[in-house]
Amino acid sequence: MDAKTAADPFAALHALGNATAHVDRIMAILEHIRLFEDFTRAEIEWLARYMRCYRADIGVEILREGEPGDCMLLLIEGSVEILKRGYQGLPQRLAVVGPGRTLGEMSLIDGEPRFASCITLAPTLFAVLDRDGLTRLIAEQPKTGIKLLMELVMLLNQRLRTVSGELLKCLDNQRLRIR
Amino acid sequence: MDAKTAADPFAALHALGNATAHVDRIMAILEHIRLFEDFTRAEIEWLARYMRCYRADIGVEILREGEPGDCMLLLIEGSVEILKRGYQGLPQRLAVVGPGRTLGEMSLIDGEPRFASCITLAPTLFAVLDRDGLTRLIAEQPKTGIKLLMELVMLLNQRLRTVSGELLKCLDNQRLRIR
Repeated sequence: MDAKTAADPFAALHALGNATAHVDRIMAILEHIRLFEDFTRAEIEWLARYMRCYRADIGVEILREGEPGDCMLLLIEGSVEILKRGYQGLPQRLAVVGPGRTLGEMSLIDGEPRFASCITLAPTLFAVLDRDGLTRLIAEQPKTGIKLLMELVMLLNQRLRTVSGELLKCLDNQRLRIR
Repeated sequence: MDAKTAADPFAALHALGNATAHVDRIMAILEHIRLFEDFTRAEIEWLARYMRCYRADIGVEILREGEPGDCMLLLIEGSVEILKRGYQGLPQRLAVVGPGRTLGEMSLIDGEPRFASCITLAPTLFAVLDRDGLTRLIAEQPKTGIKLLMELVMLLNQRLRTVSGELLKCLDNQRLRIR
């Protein structure tokens, strides 16, 4: 299960095995992990078995915009800058995020290319859940799997509300400017 | 289960009972229903037991922006205009949608006020899945429930990608205009 394959996108990083050794750290930042809202320690211990942990030094690009990907990252320690290329081709900073934030859910779900790049601003510890892990979790631990799916639905939903609101505001500004 | 309560937001419409009587119609438009991708007829028959059907005449506001709501609508026949108030308070048409389109998933998921209003442009038949129905489906038919959750995740995810892309384009245009 922990055997590295050539396809491991984090092969160059320090692999720390599955996430069960880091449950205490995850519990310590639990209130900042939107995805694990309402999860018990027992459920997080279950989840951790399906996640692998890695440590990256500062300045490492842990996700690259446009590259294929089928996994989500949960930041446990450290800091990450999210960048996306603008229409001029220049990378624009979308956000700086820290422990508790999840990254890359969209590609976990649809396997489409990464929407943005993520570069560590400090030594960073993160756990990875890939499509295969999610599928096994749902098959082997349906109750926890359903809970995770529900939380993913909630998370995406809230982002969709926020981004839709921002888009309408932006379009409205554009219209006013044109008048 | 079909007893109308005072809280039924569709009490003024023609209630047609649960959706099992309309499985043939749902199957006929199946290829247009993103949410039911990969569902078998048997699974749709299961789902239909947890959905209620209604018919609305032309010009009826079936969802109202800002009002509380905890259900999703699946359009089976007819046509609906989606409107949202702009910053000037004037309603703006976001889209016109037809059979196969789902409406109101966001409020089904988070119970927050409706993001937009929906007004029928033709006599419209639709099926309703509320939070209670979703919860019972997951508890009683976990396999179908998980499939529906996965499809909801996919749907929200795709919308989030689309809207995020549009927002970045709009912000980029704004920046160019300011320069």
